[in-house]
Amino acid sequence: MSRWEPNARGRLEQAALELYRERGFDQITVTEIAERAGLTERTFFRYFADKREMLFSGQDRLRELYVRAIAAAPETASPIEMVAAALEAAVPVFRERHEFARQRQAVIDATPGLQERELLKRAALASAMVEALRRRGVPDPAASLAADVGVIAFKNAFARWVRAPDEQDLAHLIREVLDQLKVMIVGE
Amino acid sequence: MSRWEPNARGRLEQAALELYRERGFDQITVTEIAERAGLTERTFFRYFADKREMLFSGQDRLRELYVRAIAAAPETASPIEMVAAALEAAVPVFRERHEFARQRQAVIDATPGLQERELLKRAALASAMVEALRRRGVPDPAASLAADVGVIAFKNAFARWVRAPDEQDLAHLIREVLDQLKVMIVGE
Repeated sequence: MSRWEPNARGRLEQAALELYRERGFDQITVTEIAERAGLTERTFFRYFADKREMLFSGQDRLRELYVRAIAAAPETASPIEMVAAALEAAVPVFRERHEFARQRQAVIDATPGLQERELLKRAALASAMVEALRRRGVPDPAASLAADVGVIAFKNAFARWVRAPDEQDLAHLIREVLDQLKVMIVGE
Repeated sequence: MSRWEPNARGRLEQAALELYRERGFDQITVTEIAERAGLTERTFFRYFADKREMLFSGQDRLRELYVRAIAAAPETASPIEMVAAALEAAVPVFRERHEFARQRQAVIDATPGLQERELLKRAALASAMVEALRRRGVPDPAASLAADVGVIAFKNAFARWVRAPDEQDLAHLIREVLDQLKVMIVGE
């Protein structure tokens, strides 16, 4: 078997999601995932630390995109505009991944241990945004509040996007949620 | 030894916090906590499920107060006003507990496993508020967004309150954070 397998990462992810949905996340081993994908365990571990981290491997990329977008935001941007720019910069990561995201979310929603992990990852993304905002000279409490608003905007937009039958534009949903937050908080 | 011990709950909590700060949360057993408090393990388990839940035992009371305040909010209240009423209804729980809250937060901030627990409890409080808002006829997405805003308002206000050297009024800090959110989101 050649060491390079075409689209090994995608095949492993797809095999894992199929198995989790058939028998539940907790029941499945890495051996079974590799087997279903027609690959070896060794190949699995070349891409992922374990079966749980596999589901969250995109988070490092998200953090990187958030931090970079905040660093690159115009001088005149308000903290919330910097955060909105960060969220929108991450949208391309999800392009063509709607079906994957939907299946992944169904597994998380069915598995308490994964929901914990999701909360932790979300908190880590918020912290990364706070740090990036501080480096742009945004003082506290504005930095923390803007990052928290960003996290709930993304969470709510993503939940709508995942549930939508047709692939809606995630960037549009993010702006929609930010607008709804504005209306709600201002009270009109 | 009599079965009733004066202020057993408070003595156990104080003993636990002292021990956690001396040697770290993970190092301490329930036996040691009971011993330091001059009580038995049996008494400990009359009040708390385990040493972790001990630190979060106030959350059930918070949820109850949140849910009740949302149920009792005036007909004319907006979703965000219902949530603000919920947060303020919980303020008396923390009265006279500033030093306890400060020490408890220091233990949580030093213990990753407790931070996870805190995130989960916070998510559970948000869900309880969403349910209570829906029962008041608030549709989604307003119910989810209002609950999420409430959670970040409380989180930020509580963090300031705990760090404040003098005991500031928590209700005042909650309103301050909600005002800051308004200014931030509306952008002037």
